[in-house]
Amino acid sequence: MPFDLDSLKYNEAGLVPAIVQDAGTGAVLMMAYMNREALEKTLATGETWFWSRSRKAFWHKGETSGNVQRVKEVLYDCDRDTLLVKVEQHGAACHEGYYSCFHYRLERDGSVTVVGEKQFDPEQVYGKR
Amino acid sequence: MPFDLDSLKYNEAGLVPAIVQDAGTGAVLMMAYMNREALEKTLATGETWFWSRSRKAFWHKGETSGNVQRVKEVLYDCDRDTLLVKVEQHGAACHEGYYSCFHYRLERDGSVTVVGEKQFDPEQVYGKR
Repeated sequence: MPFDLDSLKYNEAGLVPAIVQDAGTGAVLMMAYMNREALEKTLATGETWFWSRSRKAFWHKGETSGNVQRVKEVLYDCDRDTLLVKVEQHGAACHEGYYSCFHYRLERDGSVTVVGEKQFDPEQVYGKR
Repeated sequence: MPFDLDSLKYNEAGLVPAIVQDAGTGAVLMMAYMNREALEKTLATGETWFWSRSRKAFWHKGETSGNVQRVKEVLYDCDRDTLLVKVEQHGAACHEGYYSCFHYRLERDGSVTVVGEKQFDPEQVYGKR
């Protein structure tokens, strides 16, 4: 019996959080939100599609930057309210130019360390904003 | 200057999603929600604390099952609205007895495969519910 995408537990905005992980290294790259249609597009195209809450529009990751994510696996959790998408990341995932969006580490003394290296200059990729 | 926990972007319910990852293997174990106080407890105790949306109460992961998570690193993302907590997982993370909560894989043909092996019997750990 095929999986019913309606059986996932979308939140009141019709969205489910999707954690994106590098299928090769295991690095967690980003988290974004999918509605049912974004998940359908992701499964159909093999690249990640999200719903941008700020722009209220579909967001094909990498459309502007070229940093697309090829989908290797899609998993859901025991509560059916979160997705884990394992991908092959082209370029870098973060719009700030870092490989992962999680590049700020909270230290025990309360300070913050930037981890990882910039892989591209956002201004060159997206233009001045 | 110490990091101001108020500078994170909590949602309208005062919560921020926290992805929990095995610091050793890189496996994504679960996602749950923290409010500011749960994050403070997590940083202060070195074990994960969440806010249970269903029970409307603090939730010290592993309190019942013994499957606590020792915190190795806490990172936040470029949007400041998601946490990544790298932990050493005792036992298994999922209340269904699996190591990771993400043990349902959506296949391209629409079927679902259960991945991973049960590490404990939930009835023995939590009692019949």
